[in-house]
Amino acid sequence: MRMRRKKHREERLESCAEIMIQDIFEYSSDLCKAFDRTAPLHLEIGCGKGGFISTLAELNPDINYIAFEKNLDVLVLAAEKVAEKGLTNVKFVPGDAEALGQLDEQQSAERLYINFCDPWHKWGHRKRRLTHERYLAIYERLMKDGGEIHFKTDNAPLFEFSLNSFSDYGMKLKNITLDLHNSRFEGNVMTEYEKLFSEKGQPIYRCEAIFCQR
Amino acid sequence: MRMRRKKHREERLESCAEIMIQDIFEYSSDLCKAFDRTAPLHLEIGCGKGGFISTLAELNPDINYIAFEKNLDVLVLAAEKVAEKGLTNVKFVPGDAEALGQLDEQQSAERLYINFCDPWHKWGHRKRRLTHERYLAIYERLMKDGGEIHFKTDNAPLFEFSLNSFSDYGMKLKNITLDLHNSRFEGNVMTEYEKLFSEKGQPIYRCEAIFCQR
Repeated sequence: MRMRRKKHREERLESCAEIMIQDIFEYSSDLCKAFDRTAPLHLEIGCGKGGFISTLAELNPDINYIAFEKNLDVLVLAAEKVAEKGLTNVKFVPGDAEALGQLDEQQSAERLYINFCDPWHKWGHRKRRLTHERYLAIYERLMKDGGEIHFKTDNAPLFEFSLNSFSDYGMKLKNITLDLHNSRFEGNVMTEYEKLFSEKGQPIYRCEAIFCQR
Repeated sequence: MRMRRKKHREERLESCAEIMIQDIFEYSSDLCKAFDRTAPLHLEIGCGKGGFISTLAELNPDINYIAFEKNLDVLVLAAEKVAEKGLTNVKFVPGDAEALGQLDEQQSAERLYINFCDPWHKWGHRKRRLTHERYLAIYERLMKDGGEIHFKTDNAPLFEFSLNSFSDYGMKLKNITLDLHNSRFEGNVMTEYEKLFSEKGQPIYRCEAIFCQR
């Protein structure tokens, strides 16, 4: 999604400084330390405008959330959303999944959300898909044993690729659905993008993939 | 699929006696013994008119195949197809998956095919689906470690159910595709039913599920 550069973007991000992690390497060895309190840590890669993460954080005050977003024009909207709600259990990182790869191996996160990421539809670009084994190896280094990836997409080829990628990596699949909004799954929190697509009657694919004991 | 009772059905089946297993319990302790030679054993549950199994058997003369079909009116067509081709590596059992449950535990089969089985679309009937855990337990008792189920369907809810059932049972999923005929999968052998459906442009779902070491 292209978006016009937000007016006064830097000032607006500055006013959300408390919930921004400017230097992720400060928490290189333990992402949990980004919060003052001890609580289970859940991550989101590519939070967009933050509708999903801010709703989740409201619903689950006992979880700490760190959301990554490389597009500063949408990140500013996400941060303002969380600031307005006065939530203290969400922090944002201006960056993408590559940043995670530079952190130390650690047993921090219990869950990682990937919602409607770029499908990179060309086969030659598949290494850029956020569910490629290259990324799974990055995520695994940061997660506790039994840590879960919760994945949603409206793109069938990406979903197919991801199921195989998770399984080939040795992860256990759970709660697979080929049509989330007509399934028995309960407690779904919609993203902005998901609302648009599901209103058009397009199926949403979802699954959970669990890292097994190393 | 309803089918008119075949004329002279019993005589026709009788003339294929050599490739019929009338009493599966004769091979209760080892299905491989249904053949005179030693070779890997692959099974098919619900072979219909036998287009799939007869093509497979022609392509793979070094594999022994046993195909189950409870509807005698289609079984007769399958048996005649194999008899006409003069194949000696296929045998048929007039029966369904329940028959398998009455055999002894054994390490016989390396692969089991389930193609376009009844989706039993009502949730209350899900125990009748051939990929329900109740059946997986039956199949597992007959298969070698690492034995594979190769599953195809045109029914999305059944495919979704089956992926979860396989995974929840502890099986490893492989080669999942949500649109077989537009996928990178090679070497697909079509069933009669599959030809009809794919000609209409409907996607075919396919996966492999592997029994892991007990």
